[in-house]
Amino acid sequence: MAVNLPELGPLPPVGGVRVGTAGAGIKQHERDDIAVFLLAPETVVAGVFTRSAFRAAPVQIASAHLAAGEVRALVINSGNANAATGEAGLEDARAVCQAVADAAGISQTAVLPFSTGVIGERLPVDRVRNAVVRAADQAAENCWPAAARAIMTTDTGPKAVSHRVQIQGCPVTINGIAKGAGMIRPDMATMLAFVCCDARVTRQCLDLLIREVADRSFNRISIDGDTSTNDSFVICASGMADNPPITSREDPGYQDLLEGLCAVAVELATRIVRDGEGATKFVTIRVRGGADAEECLQVAYTIAESPLVKTATFAGDPNWGRFCMAIGRSGLKDLDTRGVDLYLDDVCVARGGLMAQGYKEADGVRVMAQDEFEIRVELGRGYVEEVVWTCDLSYEYVRINAEYRT
Amino acid sequence: MAVNLPELGPLPPVGGVRVGTAGAGIKQHERDDIAVFLLAPETVVAGVFTRSAFRAAPVQIASAHLAAGEVRALVINSGNANAATGEAGLEDARAVCQAVADAAGISQTAVLPFSTGVIGERLPVDRVRNAVVRAADQAAENCWPAAARAIMTTDTGPKAVSHRVQIQGCPVTINGIAKGAGMIRPDMATMLAFVCCDARVTRQCLDLLIREVADRSFNRISIDGDTSTNDSFVICASGMADNPPITSREDPGYQDLLEGLCAVAVELATRIVRDGEGATKFVTIRVRGGADAEECLQVAYTIAESPLVKTATFAGDPNWGRFCMAIGRSGLKDLDTRGVDLYLDDVCVARGGLMAQGYKEADGVRVMAQDEFEIRVELGRGYVEEVVWTCDLSYEYVRINAEYRT
Repeated sequence: MAVNLPELGPLPPVGGVRVGTAGAGIKQHERDDIAVFLLAPETVVAGVFTRSAFRAAPVQIASAHLAAGEVRALVINSGNANAATGEAGLEDARAVCQAVADAAGISQTAVLPFSTGVIGERLPVDRVRNAVVRAADQAAENCWPAAARAIMTTDTGPKAVSHRVQIQGCPVTINGIAKGAGMIRPDMATMLAFVCCDARVTRQCLDLLIREVADRSFNRISIDGDTSTNDSFVICASGMADNPPITSREDPGYQDLLEGLCAVAVELATRIVRDGEGATKFVTIRVRGGADAEECLQVAYTIAESPLVKTATFAGDPNWGRFCMAIGRSGLKDLDTRGVDLYLDDVCVARGGLMAQGYKEADGVRVMAQDEFEIRVELGRGYVEEVVWTCDLSYEYVRINAEYRT
Repeated sequence: MAVNLPELGPLPPVGGVRVGTAGAGIKQHERDDIAVFLLAPETVVAGVFTRSAFRAAPVQIASAHLAAGEVRALVINSGNANAATGEAGLEDARAVCQAVADAAGISQTAVLPFSTGVIGERLPVDRVRNAVVRAADQAAENCWPAAARAIMTTDTGPKAVSHRVQIQGCPVTINGIAKGAGMIRPDMATMLAFVCCDARVTRQCLDLLIREVADRSFNRISIDGDTSTNDSFVICASGMADNPPITSREDPGYQDLLEGLCAVAVELATRIVRDGEGATKFVTIRVRGGADAEECLQVAYTIAESPLVKTATFAGDPNWGRFCMAIGRSGLKDLDTRGVDLYLDDVCVARGGLMAQGYKEADGVRVMAQDEFEIRVELGRGYVEEVVWTCDLSYEYVRINAEYRT
């Protein structure tokens, strides 16, 4: 059950980045559940993390280590989130970092840990440590597909993207992997994404870049994707490419790198939606004519999050009253519904807040019968546009989440 | 599929209030879909309405008529919400009011119209007008059960409650009927509730009372129940009882009437939840130890609205990590999770933000296997408590909403 989720394509090496995987048998025994990234010295790393009050232990450690300075490795486990585990969970995360540090000959604080899976249970630290050492030992430049598989939980397929850009005439390679989960409100699931490139860029610039990239990709999939216990998005830049170093936003290479990173991140983010739990439809929600980005997003997220819209989408039912309801309750100040238009792809369903002249239900049915379509709202009160990607709510979503632990 | 929804009990007459029903064949032909309330002269009426930007035509007319002065009748149809219908919808609603006015010999502005059902379609006005006249003609003091049935849409059973209170030694009768709908986010469905009593009370006092009552009942079921296109809650007081008139909040009768109205409204509100679409569990979410009511409600609603909590509830799976996630992402400022405790009924599941010593999963399973239980959160940062009622998210919810129009 995934909507046009592409197979993995070629994933060329990224200079200065080695990846290894191993199986710790955390939740499943038949596949790898550990991935380790080993990064060349001088690699620059930036990260954005969940803003949940219940930040998982690895998130707390990763942000502390990232703030402390040099980063030389990432270690990721699936099957257990190491969240709501208190002081013991922090010690477990540190022990896993130490195992990577010992294997790679670096310091513990140079390792960023990440976890995804069930909440509230302790990590099997000994098994994880053993697997981590094995993963580090066999790390190589061509293990990206295995890493994309190792970080999966309820994903039905791995998600990895490679993209090459020219920065001032110099080729730069960008690889990324990501995992999703329950997609109806991804803010409560765990989203992990790791993007590595060989561009030369300062830490300050990468910090600016990651925020811009996140806001155009992972923060646009169906909600505040930044509020689960474990959500993390990391960009590593090894500096192995030949581009002139990017040291400020005004640098000519900044925009090139931004676009390259966005291409990878948007593709990963939309693949997470395509593989949303139980998803049968991939929906783009575009809100135009808003006074500012905030109100466009408010409307887009309200539509994206509405279970009634999501079930109508599942049914392929152009029950456009539900879209109007979602717009109406999205909390926009002084919204004049007489200025609101609604489209399903190219079909104008409502104009000026009521059914469009000449709209035929058959046309709406035709659009919504597709496995991908766009819901477009024209607010008629400004010039700002925002996009959010989401999926439908199916029987399968309920089954997956009702049976997740049992 | 309803969780312990009681059968209708006895509904004694409320002096000064006559009720009639009839069938207009709006959506279903085998049952009545029109209810008319005829109110004695001097009846005092208060109402609270949706705050959606897409306010349905009848809501716009009802609030205008209510503001204009004397109210002598209510007219309700199910099967069509007369929402997102523009100027034509307003004319339709006025035409329905005029039909009641003609039948009852009152003015059009003394009639409040209410509609519930599909959005975006025109009312079949001629059929509605004919039915309204028949309903008014046969209005009687003992037709409450028929009215409770006539306003149903996807409800599996009628909801009506009667309660008798003593106000300064004088008996007062309070009857109420309500209808619910999709319960996962009732703010997007249509909730209608009509409560009539024979108490003597001023319009100003009834305006105060209805707000207090709504905040303890209909605004506590699983969300901002005030933001759909049609949500309406009305209280009528005919003044036929012998109690000394209640003219201010300090009046001794004010508190008695408040408690009586709350008893009816809370019972109706929780019955709406019990009959939530596809509901198999009735869940009370109690948040204690908050600094203020707002933050308690923020946490309670985030838990109540979370599809992952709702599916775990459906499965009877004490996946308490999902509750922690919901608390974590509810947006409380500076929440120290080390002060947070979590209970399922009397079972302490988490203490200080992590799994409680001695908690056994079997105990959580035992609680969640019941068809009614309480999720209690202790925030440990204040002395305020709030309660919200909600239900689970089942396959049946998806089926109902995916097939609603087809």
